Amino acid sequence: MSDSLVLQLAKDLLSRKSVTPEDAGCQQMIIERLEGLGFTIETMVFEDTTNLWARRGTTAPVFCFAGHTDVVPVGKIEDWDTDPFVPTVIDGYLYGRGAADMKGSIASFLVAVENFINANPNHQGSIALLITSDEEGPFINGTTRVIDTLEARNEKIDWCIVGEPSSTNKVGDIVKNGRRGSLTGDIVVKGIQGHVAYPHLADNPIHKLAPALTELSQVVWDQGNEYFPATTLQITDIRSGAGASNIVPGEATCQFNLRYSTELTADLIKFRIEGIFAKHGLNYDISWVHSGQPFLTEPGNLLNAITDSIENVCGYPSELSTSGGTSDGRFIAPTGAQVVELGPVNATIHKVNECVKIADIEQLAEIYEQTLVKLLAQ
Amino acid sequence: MSDSLVLQLAKDLLSRKSVTPEDAGCQQMIIERLEGLGFTIETMVFEDTTNLWARRGTTAPVFCFAGHTDVVPVGKIEDWDTDPFVPTVIDGYLYGRGAADMKGSIASFLVAVENFINANPNHQGSIALLITSDEEGPFINGTTRVIDTLEARNEKIDWCIVGEPSSTNKVGDIVKNGRRGSLTGDIVVKGIQGHVAYPHLADNPIHKLAPALTELSQVVWDQGNEYFPATTLQITDIRSGAGASNIVPGEATCQFNLRYSTELTADLIKFRIEGIFAKHGLNYDISWVHSGQPFLTEPGNLLNAITDSIENVCGYPSELSTSGGTSDGRFIAPTGAQVVELGPVNATIHKVNECVKIADIEQLAEIYEQTLVKLLAQ
Repeated sequence: MSDSLVLQLAKDLLSRKSVTPEDAGCQQMIIERLEGLGFTIETMVFEDTTNLWARRGTTAPVFCFAGHTDVVPVGKIEDWDTDPFVPTVIDGYLYGRGAADMKGSIASFLVAVENFINANPNHQGSIALLITSDEEGPFINGTTRVIDTLEARNEKIDWCIVGEPSSTNKVGDIVKNGRRGSLTGDIVVKGIQGHVAYPHLADNPIHKLAPALTELSQVVWDQGNEYFPATTLQITDIRSGAGASNIVPGEATCQFNLRYSTELTADLIKFRIEGIFAKHGLNYDISWVHSGQPFLTEPGNLLNAITDSIENVCGYPSELSTSGGTSDGRFIAPTGAQVVELGPVNATIHKVNECVKIADIEQLAEIYEQTLVKLLAQ
Repeated sequence: MSDSLVLQLAKDLLSRKSVTPEDAGCQQMIIERLEGLGFTIETMVFEDTTNLWARRGTTAPVFCFAGHTDVVPVGKIEDWDTDPFVPTVIDGYLYGRGAADMKGSIASFLVAVENFINANPNHQGSIALLITSDEEGPFINGTTRVIDTLEARNEKIDWCIVGEPSSTNKVGDIVKNGRRGSLTGDIVVKGIQGHVAYPHLADNPIHKLAPALTELSQVVWDQGNEYFPATTLQITDIRSGAGASNIVPGEATCQFNLRYSTELTADLIKFRIEGIFAKHGLNYDISWVHSGQPFLTEPGNLLNAITDSIENVCGYPSELSTSGGTSDGRFIAPTGAQVVELGPVNATIHKVNECVKIADIEQLAEIYEQTLVKLLAQ
């Protein structure tokens, strides 16, 4: 039995070493297929990042598939059972870095759009692809700058599927109709260095910080809501010490990150946290990185089309979720687009021996195609 | 005016670069003077450390001067106004690394012992010097091993003056008749690493540690007693973090040090601290370093001789104290010796431009000599 088209395309993408922010020719391969289907191609290079904006059609509504060709590093290559850049099929699974996150979904969508256009050459509205090679990196020169460019010329996306691996146990069991916000704080607490034998002449920043962190880690931020789990805070880093057991350190640094629901705003969170630090008498500097506002896509045209397609193709219903990390959806949703994430099972992403079930990416192509039919067929 | 003998000897010692554990010929210079005075010399080399045990007389009581020829590093040499190893006199002060800690006191004692023996060639008991070059270093191969050697052959010290710079504002204003104990704990707290977006799958060791450290830093250990200030604990180091704001670290390390009074024992402290960690549910390993038991020399022959001599020479009374860091007295006191620390003003020790007032080390020589007279003159 020869490889399906989805599997062929996935293998072709996986054999390219596109470790973030490298694209390694993935987009050129995508461009060649899309040109044959009548897409207008724009390559947008920002600094070290290559992005692709491809569109077929000039009218609204605009349906967009958003994805990334870059992959996370492989870690220790000797921990892999197969070469992470030599796509390998074993027992119905395709192995390789990026198989699930997210070269598999890109292959699925390319097949879906090819089938859809062959059957519906005069579809309604427009079909677009927004592909970056900066999703796993600092996400500065990728999707966010493509969106800025589109916004500047008033080009709008109405419906967007992000191909992130949303599924948990079987393909389509979970679709993400939103994501929590992400806010990181980095503080530097100042004390006075001194000898441990003379603590009255020193001011230990760890002693000041410990009760503040205790309170910070115990705050109940909210209860979440119908779509969002409760907001959580995790302290991700702490460092202090002058390198000797007889020295009281003069400074301590600490980092924490919140994943927050639509019940809160970044400003409200900052206000509460700075209040806790003030209450504990900390002398500190803080810098904030707000790497994503929360967004939510309520049931409507896009979500209904996706969930109906999953039920048709897979024979089981899907569940909505807003849990998990951030994705490039956070840059697209603020433009007013409906954004939903749907991709294969995420069990092996960012791990050694990353893989995807071949039957899953083939089913995913059918789900994407049916969704296109429901939204754009004449 | 030519240099006094104390100043000559101090300059001779300061010109030798004896950065710990180097002795740089200091002990040889001391040996040459002591041999002429009828001392029996034993050089005890342990690993990288040269130690000197010199004794004049074979009977009890044994009066011992304990000191060290090694000095702490100079730090950034360009921060010094003079070369730290070129002894320099400016406005009545002698500058150089080790001037106050403690080559000045060694010079003072050498002059004191020379004067005393000239006047009392047939003194009672014995006079000894225990000199190491390992006091500022890891204190593994210095005084502690000389004491082990003496103990093994049942050679006892009755009275010991440690020449550490005990004085605060003027020479002799403070004598230290004891020192607090020092106990260091290093803990490794184990958690479960994970993604901050899925905190229920991780176990953040910083969140566990923060309330335990809060309690640890707030414990009232004791109220001290007549001779000792209250026991204190300082957290000296904390580290955790996997290097990314989206990762919950899997481990945290922390170090703390206690300076404790004779109201407590190391075992009691360990028991209480391990109780606090257990109460907060920490999964941890701990290692303890007990770098000194507390010791106390109550008023008696030695202390009275010293304080009387200070009042005679200086015209003011001295104060007893057990505050401050550890010294090699901690190794000598457990043998049953009375141990008192008396040396020059400590304002510049371990700092750039370390210096000692020349008049102070000359007075110190007189104090040491009068103490010898009170204790050992016939």
